[in-house]
Amino acid sequence: MHDLYHELISLAESDNYPFHMPGHKRNTMSTPFEGAFRCDITEIDGFDNLHDESGLILDAEKRANKLYGAKETFFLVNGSTCGVLSAVSAAVPMGGTILAARGSHKALYHAAYIRNLDIKYLPYKINSKFEIPEAYTAEDIRPYLSKDIAAVFITSPTYEGKSSDIAEISKLCHENNIPLIVDAAHGAHFGFGNTNNTDKKEKSSTDYTFVPESAVTQGADIVIHSVHKTLPSMTQTALIHINGELIDGALVKRYLRIYQSSSPSYILMASIEQCMEEMDKNGAEYIDKLLSFRNHIAEETRELKNIYIPGKSEIDDPCKVLITDVSGTMTGQQIYDILREEYALQLEMAGQKIALAIITGSDRLEGIKRLTEALKAIDSKIETIKESEKSVASSSFDHNKEEKEPLYRDIPRKELSLTNAWNSECELVAIEEAQGRCSGEFINLYPPGIPIIVPGEVFSKEIIDEIKSCQKKGLNLQGCLYNKDDEEIFVEVVKV
Amino acid sequence: MHDLYHELISLAESDNYPFHMPGHKRNTMSTPFEGAFRCDITEIDGFDNLHDESGLILDAEKRANKLYGAKETFFLVNGSTCGVLSAVSAAVPMGGTILAARGSHKALYHAAYIRNLDIKYLPYKINSKFEIPEAYTAEDIRPYLSKDIAAVFITSPTYEGKSSDIAEISKLCHENNIPLIVDAAHGAHFGFGNTNNTDKKEKSSTDYTFVPESAVTQGADIVIHSVHKTLPSMTQTALIHINGELIDGALVKRYLRIYQSSSPSYILMASIEQCMEEMDKNGAEYIDKLLSFRNHIAEETRELKNIYIPGKSEIDDPCKVLITDVSGTMTGQQIYDILREEYALQLEMAGQKIALAIITGSDRLEGIKRLTEALKAIDSKIETIKESEKSVASSSFDHNKEEKEPLYRDIPRKELSLTNAWNSECELVAIEEAQGRCSGEFINLYPPGIPIIVPGEVFSKEIIDEIKSCQKKGLNLQGCLYNKDDEEIFVEVVKV
Repeated sequence: MHDLYHELISLAESDNYPFHMPGHKRNTMSTPFEGAFRCDITEIDGFDNLHDESGLILDAEKRANKLYGAKETFFLVNGSTCGVLSAVSAAVPMGGTILAARGSHKALYHAAYIRNLDIKYLPYKINSKFEIPEAYTAEDIRPYLSKDIAAVFITSPTYEGKSSDIAEISKLCHENNIPLIVDAAHGAHFGFGNTNNTDKKEKSSTDYTFVPESAVTQGADIVIHSVHKTLPSMTQTALIHINGELIDGALVKRYLRIYQSSSPSYILMASIEQCMEEMDKNGAEYIDKLLSFRNHIAEETRELKNIYIPGKSEIDDPCKVLITDVSGTMTGQQIYDILREEYALQLEMAGQKIALAIITGSDRLEGIKRLTEALKAIDSKIETIKESEKSVASSSFDHNKEEKEPLYRDIPRKELSLTNAWNSECELVAIEEAQGRCSGEFINLYPPGIPIIVPGEVFSKEIIDEIKSCQKKGLNLQGCLYNKDDEEIFVEVVKV
Repeated sequence: MHDLYHELISLAESDNYPFHMPGHKRNTMSTPFEGAFRCDITEIDGFDNLHDESGLILDAEKRANKLYGAKETFFLVNGSTCGVLSAVSAAVPMGGTILAARGSHKALYHAAYIRNLDIKYLPYKINSKFEIPEAYTAEDIRPYLSKDIAAVFITSPTYEGKSSDIAEISKLCHENNIPLIVDAAHGAHFGFGNTNNTDKKEKSSTDYTFVPESAVTQGADIVIHSVHKTLPSMTQTALIHINGELIDGALVKRYLRIYQSSSPSYILMASIEQCMEEMDKNGAEYIDKLLSFRNHIAEETRELKNIYIPGKSEIDDPCKVLITDVSGTMTGQQIYDILREEYALQLEMAGQKIALAIITGSDRLEGIKRLTEALKAIDSKIETIKESEKSVASSSFDHNKEEKEPLYRDIPRKELSLTNAWNSECELVAIEEAQGRCSGEFINLYPPGIPIIVPGEVFSKEIIDEIKSCQKKGLNLQGCLYNKDDEEIFVEVVKV
């Protein structure tokens, strides 16, 4: 086949000698990366140029584009990060206003910083059962669509697999002539396989029988997909899709040239290409494997007494396996640690309530079975702990009941713009002295990685209490200084 | 050894199962990249985090730092591009002024665009013999160091191997309290091997016996090194070094977090690490090989009648092999095409006067010999052409004479800022109608890739004539529209 990948291999096997970059000259320095080194080149004749594509790379982008059905699709070798930076830079003028969820990826905050944007926040909506960010409906967004908003920015699916109603949100945005940017970094697999679940006989009503529709076909104006997160492509690879008439595609492309290396890796590009090829040929099978793995996990863990894994009524994306102990005996972090240390199962992340495993169509049944067997053993272990404690720990939530109402949190009052505050001279003060003062830094609780305070926002008593309580619980706070053995916390505030 | 690379291999060979990103699950989709896929992970326990490094990555950066002798060194997975963006963003405030050479990499222009900077230009100095950008001395720069300059930006070595006097330029900048940023993307190998040439018995006065000193030890405040260009690391990898007190290292780091993927590739990072390991252990040998290859080329081509390869008195960097036909019979592009089509030797680039081959310590003598044999054959071919033309073509330059005086070119008058002009509504007009109007685009002649006009600058009669003359010669003009068979050229001008 005449594609980038096969041309790279032909080149590696040819007699062609490189008097060009890279400096390793396709000499294989070391064994495991040998194959990659052999194919690692620069923009030589016949291999096109990512930033001004007209040959192999353009063809590969067109095939990816066809697969998702966007107007234009570009390969990204600097991750979804550069996609978010470029999308926001093209959609919102310097100093403009963007409407976004508080739980947006840090690239959104970074774009706001470098472009001096005002971020208006959607309601800060948290799923109270799992303490994860909630999805949004069009009705959540409608009251916020004021005339000053240059673009709406939504993360869907979220890191934890919650999917917003992009079709309705797109419609609403377009009625208001506002472009919708969807950070679908975790949703590159959406829209593949059988999307019509009525075609299939469902084994059980709780089984996953399809993955949600793609944000591209749901009408979003810009969609950013990390192909490395849920599809078989190398880390740092992504796609950006452009749709509709509200976005200037040439301007997006200009920013992609700015925010990406002028020496893009052919290995990363070929990896995206091959991933698209795989999804084109075997996409349905890939999704079927994912669904069968996910349903296998559900089936094997359904009867467990303590370990609970929310199903499709709670988590839209089958890739995201949230593991919780409903008895409240173990934290997500403890489950994560046991899986890693005792079973050599490395999960994606953990917090107080949940441990998060990511599965894809590239998993192997052997791995899935190791996970379910380990979870059974951990479930028994929890039982033993509970018995030894001679009291049944009170469940922190009942998974048989309806999902609790989402929790809405306040967003701190803003006094300075993000750009001004982050650029200001700051001083480190004990947190008690910070009340009423402007933060000079982001303070994030990780996970979920949502900022508790953003530069320019004012420390209230409530925020100070929240930070102190997180520190007491031993949670991972970023952006403030503290000693684990000590109660003192220091934060950066803007000098007055 | 406990380093990133070996830990990745241990992980690949372990029983550890990935319930995390990337989605390929270290399953080896396809043969040649197999090794890379096996080691391609995300930020899991024990593997550190590029953006907040404290373990394996920090250790690797420290080893690189020690090798170059900077105050701080960071790994870059988005190429020197993100290093230039971050350096300029940290050194020059929004709307500030930077002093730079016209021939700076486009990342410098991009940084100016996104930060609304005023670029003041150094004299536009061209080596008239080879039509390549010239190096700078402190005396070239002294008259331009006005109070408004926030930073000086110098490219050294240039793409073609010209090295500026960074030691003296640093001293001058520091006397004026101005930080010096050196884009040394092509100079990551500088400073390795034997730098004291008096230690060695020189075989001939024209032999290369060392590579120039590194910009880091010469006192530059920020130095950006592409490790993939002249050292054995994968494409898209680079380093940024910070020195001295004029640069806020924490601010550079903030911008690196902004301009680089939050999912950086462990393959790229391990490749940088292994490259540094190689240079630490075998750096002198690597440079010796480079020098011996370079001197072999010189020796084998010294007696040729038409093909001329400038030596160390003209080109500082032994990696850069400039190939010219002094009889003026063949252009650089023609030599490049013959080498590629008839000898399967792929060079880096070509222009009117020169073809450019890059050699490094990773080359093999077999390849070098293929090049010299091919050049001998081309030299004979040129002789034959000359004879068949029954007249000796007049040489366009005499390589035995002293180097010609550098040529100074005018820089167009600026009417609008780069940012304003590039953001303005533009229209396409026939080039004859553009006189006196503001350009809305960059127009570049490639090579050397230096802009003829930058957005915001005014089309003069001279510029219009130059563009028309380039088009007539069939040169590669970027940023204007024309038909190869047609004389009409269209350019973007800012609407009035």
